[in-house]
Amino acid sequence: MQLLEDTLNNIGKLDVAIMAKVQKRLDNLTKPQGSLGRLEELARHIAGITGQESPALKHKVIFTLAADHGVTEEGVSAYPKEVTPQMVYNFLRGGAGINVLAKQVNARVIIVDMGVCEKLQVSGYKLQDDKTAFKNYKINLGTRNFTKGPAMSRAEAIKAIETGIKLVEEEIANGVDPIRTDGRPVVMGRPTSNGVNIIGTGDMGIGNTTPSSAITAVFTDCKAEDVTGYGTGINESGWAKKVESIKKGIALNKPDASDPVDVLAKVGGYEIGGIAGVILGAARYRIPVVIDGFISGAGALIATRLAPQAKDFIIASHCSQERGHKYALAHMGLKPLLDLNLRLGEGTGAALAMSLCESALRILNEMATFGEANVSGKC
Amino acid sequence: MQLLEDTLNNIGKLDVAIMAKVQKRLDNLTKPQGSLGRLEELARHIAGITGQESPALKHKVIFTLAADHGVTEEGVSAYPKEVTPQMVYNFLRGGAGINVLAKQVNARVIIVDMGVCEKLQVSGYKLQDDKTAFKNYKINLGTRNFTKGPAMSRAEAIKAIETGIKLVEEEIANGVDPIRTDGRPVVMGRPTSNGVNIIGTGDMGIGNTTPSSAITAVFTDCKAEDVTGYGTGINESGWAKKVESIKKGIALNKPDASDPVDVLAKVGGYEIGGIAGVILGAARYRIPVVIDGFISGAGALIATRLAPQAKDFIIASHCSQERGHKYALAHMGLKPLLDLNLRLGEGTGAALAMSLCESALRILNEMATFGEANVSGKC
Repeated sequence: MQLLEDTLNNIGKLDVAIMAKVQKRLDNLTKPQGSLGRLEELARHIAGITGQESPALKHKVIFTLAADHGVTEEGVSAYPKEVTPQMVYNFLRGGAGINVLAKQVNARVIIVDMGVCEKLQVSGYKLQDDKTAFKNYKINLGTRNFTKGPAMSRAEAIKAIETGIKLVEEEIANGVDPIRTDGRPVVMGRPTSNGVNIIGTGDMGIGNTTPSSAITAVFTDCKAEDVTGYGTGINESGWAKKVESIKKGIALNKPDASDPVDVLAKVGGYEIGGIAGVILGAARYRIPVVIDGFISGAGALIATRLAPQAKDFIIASHCSQERGHKYALAHMGLKPLLDLNLRLGEGTGAALAMSLCESALRILNEMATFGEANVSGKC
Repeated sequence: MQLLEDTLNNIGKLDVAIMAKVQKRLDNLTKPQGSLGRLEELARHIAGITGQESPALKHKVIFTLAADHGVTEEGVSAYPKEVTPQMVYNFLRGGAGINVLAKQVNARVIIVDMGVCEKLQVSGYKLQDDKTAFKNYKINLGTRNFTKGPAMSRAEAIKAIETGIKLVEEEIANGVDPIRTDGRPVVMGRPTSNGVNIIGTGDMGIGNTTPSSAITAVFTDCKAEDVTGYGTGINESGWAKKVESIKKGIALNKPDASDPVDVLAKVGGYEIGGIAGVILGAARYRIPVVIDGFISGAGALIATRLAPQAKDFIIASHCSQERGHKYALAHMGLKPLLDLNLRLGEGTGAALAMSLCESALRILNEMATFGEANVSGKC
């Protein structure tokens, strides 16, 4: 609980002075003012997050958090739950969507067992390169079925969030390049980040759109029907069962929307808590955090209910095809960068948006100004 | 005229057999079917264009075509026309938006003088690397003011389009890697492309949203007001002058919408004709062509009026903030990938979308199938 409290108490504000400076530079670059639209906003935003005038995205990390869900007993998913561990092995072999898209943007992928329903045998897997890592932070063998009681204990919910925070701290400390550019050593807990310049969130967990819909319903006050989609591809009768399970879970457990930990415990999931923690940790250490789709959106709802100012450190990668996501984003006042009908998760949308973050910073850092290029200004 | 006719007569259809094969592979990759949305569509589309089951985007080229516009005399632009040559020099020094974004996706930038209003002194510029090239295909020192007569002659309009086609043919022939993977030599005029696997279009020309709006108005039957925006940032009175000039140009010259060359000659521009030619050339040689924003959209309108089947070879990168672009795209039935409030031109949106094309092909070519990864299918 101490780590969570410390984190919540140490989330700052965007650096508006740096943002004003960056805006001035953007306005002096050889292009009509504002003509690079959201790329310019993004550059200014990342500068405000990091407090740096010329931020760089040298070290990119995507956390793909995996866990299972007791509610799959209710037949809410199109795939059997053994797919969760099978997909973890696929991540370790480099064959999944997130591996492929992370490679394109040169991001590390850190796969974390937050609560997969079986003991994973990862020792046999030779990770392909230093770009993939596996961490075992299993809290339990999947959550309990929330139509029959709370998904997890309150202690487990806190542990899930704190694990996410810890993941961020470990990356800062164990970064590929732990030497600060100013020569000072990295100090844990200080608002600095050398080992990681941008973080993406991702998830893997058969059944996890169900708790995400439940969380979204609780926080946005939307009806379950409005925030429940087809997940990995259930049919209409599966969808009806899913909606029913969500309604039952909420009615039975009565999650308290004013207490985000209670909501996570009663109708959430371990990876969702972990994502909330990653977001809070990123916010504390002033690292831009690019959130993926619907599951990450549920994590972000928890995080921003715990610390509303964490919202300023979030970059929304895309709007998922999963029905509830747009409501979650709107509720948080987040505007997604991409709208490509994605609904895979794993962090794939975050990887795509990292490329746009890089574009934004290249514009800021590498373009010539009117003065440098000897180009005339407006008439 | 022969090159244009040959090109129009040799534009084929998408390879639907390959697309079906690719769809089957996409459906077998370790993800819920269709869960990568538009990336999957894009992979299938590029396969259909190239006729290849596993297309690769090794060689990327962006053509940034520059020209001036006589209609700037009417005060339709926020910037003086000397900015066109100044920006060409900025491209050559690598300081513009397109340089920076093309570098990120490892695309060559070929800057072409299609009709800049002064003789460019490029000999003093040492191009930074083999990624930037300059070509002088100047047709004239800018177009004439279309409020007083046709912007160019019919012969010049054809020359502009044929120059665009020639640019594509030169890239195919002079590609960085002119060796076919099947060992056969590159044969000009054959539907193959080794030197370039994907093409982006871009523009530079002070005043060029004015002819683009005129072209869009003529082809879409929209009112000038509805397809005229603020370009580089004119004020309301500038906007009114711009609309007035477009109306006057159309009323005076009476461009014939059923004759795209006539429209280009009367209210177009050299770079717009060049872009139309690049699109037609790309379509002929089955190379995916990613079109940038509003100016490229005007070029695409000309191209697809000359050869409706060329549309199948176009990838629309983004929807520009410039008002008329969405009408042009809708008229052609093209759905943009990005919507980031861009309005810079130069090919910047095309460069960003090339990154998504690469993502799409990485998914197709690099992900594991359910069988390979030993992951269970649907329940």
